[in-house]
Order: sequence, then C-alpha cells, then structure tokens
Amino acid sequence: MAIINKSVALTMFLTFQGVLSFGSISRHAVTSTSRRSIVTVFSTAEQAAAAAPTSNEKKEGPIKNEQAYANLKMEEIVSLCKRRGIIFPSSEIYNGFAGFFDYGPLGAELKRNVKDAFWKNFVHNREDVVGIDSSIIHNPITWQSSGHLDGFSDPMVDCRETKLRYRADQLFCSPVVLEECGSTVGFVCVLEANDEDMVKEATSQAKKLLKEKEMKGSAIKAFQFRDLTQVTEEEMAQIPSPGSNKPTLTMPRDFNLMFQTNVGAMQDASSVAYLRPETAQGIFINYKNVVGSSRVKIPFGIAQIGKAFRNEITPRNFIFRSREFEQMEIEYFIPPGDEEWKPYHEKWIADSRAFLEQVGLKDELMGYDVHEGDGLAHYARACTDITFKFPFGVQELMGIAARGDFDLKSHSEGSGKVLDYFDEETKEKFIPHVIEPSLGVDRLILALICSAYAEDEINGEKRSYLSFHPSIAPVKVAVLPLVKNKEPLVEAARDLFDKLSKRWNVQWDQTGAIGRRYRRADEVGVPFCVTVDFETIEDNAGVTIRDRDSTDQVRIPIDEVIPYLSKMIDGY
Amino acid sequence: MAIINKSVALTMFLTFQGVLSFGSISRHAVTSTSRRSIVTVFSTAEQAAAAAPTSNEKKEGPIKNEQAYANLKMEEIVSLCKRRGIIFPSSEIYNGFAGFFDYGPLGAELKRNVKDAFWKNFVHNREDVVGIDSSIIHNPITWQSSGHLDGFSDPMVDCRETKLRYRADQLFCSPVVLEECGSTVGFVCVLEANDEDMVKEATSQAKKLLKEKEMKGSAIKAFQFRDLTQVTEEEMAQIPSPGSNKPTLTMPRDFNLMFQTNVGAMQDASSVAYLRPETAQGIFINYKNVVGSSRVKIPFGIAQIGKAFRNEITPRNFIFRSREFEQMEIEYFIPPGDEEWKPYHEKWIADSRAFLEQVGLKDELMGYDVHEGDGLAHYARACTDITFKFPFGVQELMGIAARGDFDLKSHSEGSGKVLDYFDEETKEKFIPHVIEPSLGVDRLILALICSAYAEDEINGEKRSYLSFHPSIAPVKVAVLPLVKNKEPLVEAARDLFDKLSKRWNVQWDQTGAIGRRYRRADEVGVPFCVTVDFETIEDNAGVTIRDRDSTDQVRIPIDEVIPYLSKMIDGY
Repeated sequence: MAIINKSVALTMFLTFQGVLSFGSISRHAVTSTSRRSIVTVFSTAEQAAAAAPTSNEKKEGPIKNEQAYANLKMEEIVSLCKRRGIIFPSSEIYNGFAGFFDYGPLGAELKRNVKDAFWKNFVHNREDVVGIDSSIIHNPITWQSSGHLDGFSDPMVDCRETKLRYRADQLFCSPVVLEECGSTVGFVCVLEANDEDMVKEATSQAKKLLKEKEMKGSAIKAFQFRDLTQVTEEEMAQIPSPGSNKPTLTMPRDFNLMFQTNVGAMQDASSVAYLRPETAQGIFINYKNVVGSSRVKIPFGIAQIGKAFRNEITPRNFIFRSREFEQMEIEYFIPPGDEEWKPYHEKWIADSRAFLEQVGLKDELMGYDVHEGDGLAHYARACTDITFKFPFGVQELMGIAARGDFDLKSHSEGSGKVLDYFDEETKEKFIPHVIEPSLGVDRLILALICSAYAEDEINGEKRSYLSFHPSIAPVKVAVLPLVKNKEPLVEAARDLFDKLSKRWNVQWDQTGAIGRRYRRADEVGVPFCVTVDFETIEDNAGVTIRDRDSTDQVRIPIDEVIPYLSKMIDGY
Repeated sequence: MAIINKSVALTMFLTFQGVLSFGSISRHAVTSTSRRSIVTVFSTAEQAAAAAPTSNEKKEGPIKNEQAYANLKMEEIVSLCKRRGIIFPSSEIYNGFAGFFDYGPLGAELKRNVKDAFWKNFVHNREDVVGIDSSIIHNPITWQSSGHLDGFSDPMVDCRETKLRYRADQLFCSPVVLEECGSTVGFVCVLEANDEDMVKEATSQAKKLLKEKEMKGSAIKAFQFRDLTQVTEEEMAQIPSPGSNKPTLTMPRDFNLMFQTNVGAMQDASSVAYLRPETAQGIFINYKNVVGSSRVKIPFGIAQIGKAFRNEITPRNFIFRSREFEQMEIEYFIPPGDEEWKPYHEKWIADSRAFLEQVGLKDELMGYDVHEGDGLAHYARACTDITFKFPFGVQELMGIAARGDFDLKSHSEGSGKVLDYFDEETKEKFIPHVIEPSLGVDRLILALICSAYAEDEINGEKRSYLSFHPSIAPVKVAVLPLVKNKEPLVEAARDLFDKLSKRWNVQWDQTGAIGRRYRRADEVGVPFCVTVDFETIEDNAGVTIRDRDSTDQVRIPIDEVIPYLSKMIDGY
C-alpha cells in the first residue's frame, strides 16, 4: 500500500478503516474479521455507475436466507413500521380504529414512490395507456349495473347470545366422532387459523365435550373441518358459538361489503350512495368519455390509482386486508373473440411480474396462482394471480384477469348508452373485451417492506436496515458534512444538498459520528450517503458516496454526483 | 438574408414561412400581417434556455386583457374541460351525480402535476416539513374533539309542501314596502344570485303579490334583502317558499356537512363513522407519532394531500364547490405566545403566494382577503385568504390561518394524551401553536385552467390554447416526425421519444400536416413540440423545438434536447 498518503489514510478513517482501491485495480480486505467497506475512486459518474453492482449481484441479505425469512414475524414488521414513521394505526391517540392505517413521514414518501413507479411504468412509458382519476362516490346505479349491490357480499353468521358477528367462511366446525363406534357426540367450532392452532383449540373443546357427556378419555377420530357456509340447519343447531359455547349461531346471511352513505339533504333510501369498493368501475363508466376525448385506438388501456373501501368484518394481517386501501388498476381494451385475449393476457402477466421485480420485490418470494373452475367468476375467461410469500403465508398480490365484455356490456345495459368501439380500419363495431391487471398499493408496500427487511454484521456490529430499491426508497440520499464546525466544508455540503433537493427527497444530517449517521440512514433505507469531507474542500478530491447494501464507497468529483445518482436512482 | 441556403429555406417552410435568425443576431418579421414564428439556431441547451423568455416576458394572452377575461364564461370552461378530456361529470352515462367529478386523461395528469409541485415545493425542498398520508375514515371521536360533530354545519330550511331543502344563507327575502305609505304588503323570497337577477326575480314576485292584493301598479320601495338565517318566526310565517309560493318554510335548522357511514358488522349508532371533511385533523391526531418517530424540531410542519368530503346542499361552480374534493394542507407548529406567530404567518402568506405564481397563476387575478372580527373563528389569531378572480367572481383559493393551540389542545383533552413538545434547548414544555396553509387541489386546477385559457391569431388563423406553465402541463412534449414514411427520420424521432418518455409524459403524433399537429398540441397545452425533419437526419442539423405561447422555434443539436427541456420544464 505504498500509494497511501495523508488524504487516503483519512478516507480510510472515514470509512471504518475500510479498504481502499483505485478504479477497479485492487479490492482486498485489510483484516479478516467481518465485513469491511471498500472505497473505489472514479473520475466520472459513468465509470462509477458502470462498476456498481446491479440488484441481482447484490450480496445476500437474510431475505435470501430462507430460514431467516421464515423467522420474520409480522409483529416485527408492524413495530418497525411504527418506530420508523412508516405506518401508524389510524387515530392511535383515540386507541386506533380497526382496519384503518395512517402513513407516517417515510410511509407517505414510500407510497408516493410506489404509485409514481406504477404510473411511469404503465402510463407514461407506454403509448397505449392513458390515466383517469374518478370520484370515490359514483352515481349508485353504477353498483347496480356492475353487480356489486347484489353480489359483493360475505356470508355472515350472528351469535344470538353474544351479538357477535362472524364471517361464515372463517369459522370452522367439525363433528366429534368416537374412534371406537364411529358415532358423533357433538361439534366443535373454531376460528380460522393455521392447522396446528385449529386442531389445538378443537381438541380442547372436544375434551370438554367428552367430559360433559361423561365420556372423558374416549378416543376420537381426526377432525374433519368444514366452514360454516357448508352446514345444514340441523347441524347448525348443534354447533357451539365461539362466544357462548352454546348452539346460538344463525344460518349464514349475505352482508354487503360496500360502505353506505347518504348524499344530499335527505337521509332516506332515495339518497343512498356507496364508497367504491374498487377503482375499476370508475374506468368502465368513463370509457365512453375517454374514447370520445382522446385519440386512443384499440388495443388501449385506461389506468387509475385511488382509494377504495370495503367494510371487512375481520380486517387482518396489518395493511394486507384493511377497510380503506388504495388500488392501482388498468382496464386494457382489446378486440373481442374466443382466442384473441390469450396473448394479451400472457403479455400483461409478464409485464406485471417485470414491474414487481423492477421496484424491488425478491423474485424467490413471488409465485403464480392460476384460477380455474370454481375459482373463476362466471364471466371471466381466465385469471392469474401473482402471489407473494408474506410472513403470514403466500397470498395474492396482483391479479391479471381476462374479463371478456362483461363489464362494458353490463354498464351499457344499465345505462342504456352505447358503449361500443368503431374500428376505422376494419369498419367493425364491437364491445371490446378487457384484460384487468389489478394491484393493491398497500399490499405492495407491505411486500416491499418484507422484501427489503435485512440484517447483517458490519465490523462486528449487528446492523438492521431496509434494502429498498433506490427508485422507491422514501429518502434517496443523505448528505453528511463530516464535521459541523468547519464552515467551507458545511457550505459545500449545503450547496450540494440544495441541488439534490430539487430532484429528490434528500436528508441533511450533521449530528453525531459518521458511523452513527450511516446507521441512521440504513435504518430507514436511504440507498446513498454522500459525505463531504476535508479532502473535498482541501484537495478538491470530490465526495464519497456510500452504498447502503454493500457499505462500499465510491469517491467521485462533486460535479459527477448528480449524473451518478440519476443513473442509480432514475436509471437515466 | 444572404445566408439563406436550401436547409434554411426548408426550415422556413416547416415553420409556416416564419422568420429565421441565427443566435440572437436578428429577429424581424417578413410580413406585417398577424403573428409569424421566429426560428433561432443555437448550439447548446444552455444558450437556448438563456435566450428563452421567462413567464413574465411572455406575450399577453387575452387573460391579461381584462375585457377578454371578463367575457370568459364558466360554461366555456366546463365544455372545454369535457371536450379535451380534462374533467367529466362523474358517472355521466348514468346522467351524472351532482357535486362529483371525474378527471379524464389530461385532467389526471394535471392533478398529479399540481400535487407533485405542492409536495416538492413545501415538503422536499424544505427541511422543516415532513408529509403524512392518513386515512379518510378516522376513529369518530376525532370529530367530537375537533368540534366538527357539533359545529360543522350549514343552516337549512325545509319546504313543508315541496319537501325541498334550502341553505338558509343562500335564500334571501325582502319585505315589499309601498312607496307611498311605507306599509309592508308581504314578502318576496329569491335564491342567491347576482344582484341584477335577484332584483329581477323579486320584482316579478312583487308584481304578482300586488296583483293578488288588487294593488297592481302601486310603487314599491327598493328591496332590502336579508338571508333566511336573519328572520324571526313571525316573518317566516309570511315568507313564500320558492317552490310552493306559500309560507311553507320551516325555521333554519343545523345540518351537519359530514358524510356518515357505518363501520363494522352492525348498522347502529355504535358503528357510525364519518368521511373526513378536511385533511387537517389527520395531521393533528398524528402529531404525537410524527414527533416520536421523526427528528423534527420546532418550528416544523406536517403536510398532507388527500380527499375530503362535504355533503354540500348546493354544490356549484363546477369543481369549485363539490362534494368530493382534494386538499393540500400543512400544519406548521411554532412556539406559543401572543406575538411569536406573526412573522411565521407573514412568511407563510408570502411562500404560498410565491408557490401559486410559480405554478402559473396570473398575478393580476390574485388578491388577499384578510379575515377580521366576525369573519374569524373564536380561537383563531388571524386568517388571510389568497383569492382568485374566477369567472363567477373573486373567491377564496388558499387560506393561511394562525390557529393558536386550539386543535392540539382539543385533541389532548379529547384523547387524554399529552400532546406537548419538549424543547431540548430551552428545556421548556409546551403545546405548540400552529399556522395552517390550506389549499384545494380542484380549486387550484380550476384557477390554473382559467388562467391558462388563451386565444390569439397565428398567420391570420384564430387559435385557442392552454398556456399552462411547463411544470404543471399534462403533456410536456410532443414529438413530431415531419413525415411518417421516411424510416430514418421516424426512427430518429422514435429514439428521441423513448428517451424523453423516461422523464416526462410525452406525446407521439405523426398524423396530419405539421401545422395541424402543432394546433392539436396547443389545444391541450403542450408547452414544447419537438420536430424531427429532413435536416435532422440529412445535415445532422438537430431538431426544432417550438414554444407553444410564442410559436417561436429554436433549432438545437439532438443531444441538447434533454438538457434544454430539463431547464425549461424542471428548472434544473
């Protein structure tokens, strides 16, 4: 290391006695204990960006380690989200409000970035998709035509004694059958949970039952669980309610999930309206206006991002199933036909998957769920879900459905308006068919946080950080003046901060040791820390930019910072 | 013009036989009839941007012409918004839904840009403001504490005969007093309108009244209008209802403007919740969580953009007063005291005004309205509105209120939680006071459209266009290949289009004469048209970029297009 001089030694100091190399000449560790940072000097943004590892090359976090991800608990995620100002329970000072959440300072930025990424990818970067932004409250006839008024419901059972209400498909019963003679001595009834917990609870109930019947100690057969939508009235008369432990449950009744309100001065049936349970219908009812005012030609899509509301009886799994949520939906209008939709559907599945990877979801946590038979709505041609492995299980993240012409036809019938398309080339008139990619903003955010959650060890110290993709990271850059009492150094840093702030959400941090500041930035997932040090001003030696994941640094001229970060954050 | 050669002549052809000049050497019109375009050649983006006129230097549109603006009718704006895909009536295929609107393809982009500009200006570009995004439905106790449950209401009168409901402060009565003897023969009652229309309707009613009383032809005194919140029971018994023409109106009663719904399985009083009537309370109830999770220090602000809902009895003036709208609000927390708030309040008024000018509102259409005495809420220290001259009159656009500690104190009392701030420097504990800048997204959009609406004459042809500021224009750039059947030319244009699309919302238009394409872009307010022509590919002579407002063009090298447009659109 003959080339080390004062300024280089200083750099090493700044980077935890890290490893220094010039260009791509040498990279080696000085010590062998735990991870050390590498500093590489570049003279242009282009060289530095070219040498940066791509997402795929990045070192493994615990996410890639199956066991570590399996150990990740939702409680940890919920607590981290609150602690770091990402997501709070709504109205927490009033003890919260079940099924509603508020996004804190970092969460609000994350949400903006996720929505922007979707819009840029599917609207701005495509010539065949335009956006709209329709109201949350529509003319209520919309929901009559779409079928939501009659069909958008969950089956509910009431307990006549406790007055509690349950979703019938989340309550499971099983007969208690004696091993010896095969006779049924009664029923157990448990809330949906994982298999182990359900069997545990059912066993405990069965024991009590046998004791009551003075058959304590009798062996019973394995439980055969069915949900309460599948029981007869005779059976229901024997099934104990979880609250009363007596057969006090009603038969299932449909409960509409739409929130209801009244619009206008009167509070009667004539003024009833609904909060939209999905953004998609807002697209269909605007189809005619969009075709009439834009220069769209089939195939084309209309995208919308916005709030939707569902009065879930049992909201759960944090922001995965909440009562107020945000959706990103596209209706992609295509020519009709029995076969025509297939390549469009396939392309949209591929494009959707590519988008999810692009914003940083780990490939190995995603999968597909192809709906078939009963899993498919009667009018749907096909539906494929892209799934994500959440800590509470594999669940739907994004759905891509081929819905035929069901929706436009329904609204055409409901409104008496012609909703067809005239193809100027073929001179044909038809109601277009539609492919519907649909993604929940909050679900995606939860998947991104789970995917980004990482722990490692730096210089023997445990580190917990969020490895967000730069494009969606709430804060893109932290600007750190090495010391806060040297005016030219602080001024240079401040000047850079002001320039960066015009483009991105940037953080200024001048308090505490540099290592502590790096850790603070890591915790909230800031991908880049720019440090202005003595060399910057004394030797005009540029600044260091530290990569959050590898903790490696590049030293580049100060004028190259914006081009470098543009490349790394925006990709251009 | 000795320097004109083939390529120059071609340029002139492309630009409506416009005027050509090099650098800033010469600019003069060839003909004296109506406006002609000027083409100026530059070799770098920097030079071209430096020579571009700033917003203030731009030529006068009819907006600056008081008479033309006075002639602008709301019907024209509403029709233009629908025709160009900016704003549609909600659920129009179901004959609309009063007080609700949908943003079309261009409107959705405009809205995104307006919200982004606010967020960038007040959150990202400031170190002292963070953002949040709270739910629309809160725990309902929020509205008890904030005072909305008791006080957020309009006074209503019902007509017992027609069952119609009116806002008491929008219905005006006047006694009909005989000129000769000064005796009152009855009352007239008219809906709020401009003075002329109100007098006309009242005169017609008075004539009927005199005829009924067989006093036809009697002279009466000038009407003395009062709204129906200011009448006694005795008077109300004589005031004719506008619907029945008989005294069938009830005395005013308070009608709460919050939309009500039920959350959870039960549809009873215990489950009532409200759609937020403003975003501000979502900030106050998150104050504690933001202070606890961020590193904010007083003075600091929390910003929020989001939907709010008010069950307006008479929604009107298009998107100015609708039932579903979007707000951009900031609560800026400051030290307590009787004088401390004044400089903060003044600074926020100035910053707000600067923001409104920056996004393109014409200075001469704005004004101030300082609330005093009765116009001020009991807890407020001061409130200044920035007004805008809409076609239907001068109205509040943005309010900047100094609200003392009313809100945090109310929520602290309502929740039993401590909502104070500990100042580490002075070691003092206090409930912060607050400055509240509040702006309606939809109102601002309406003001921007009115402000941008322009007509002029180009080469003797009437032109109607939208002169949006580039930062909020829905489409930033149109890329126009001069001809669509010359492959290298189209390829070069397509390549440029792809690059621009990564950064901005860009339009591709290859259909029709270039002049028609310019006009199409002007109509929807595209600030820049980039034309790729024969010179671009044959002489490597760059492209022309046409300015929408002046119709002047610059010719710059193709590599300079992005830096030039960055400067013009993003300002960096």
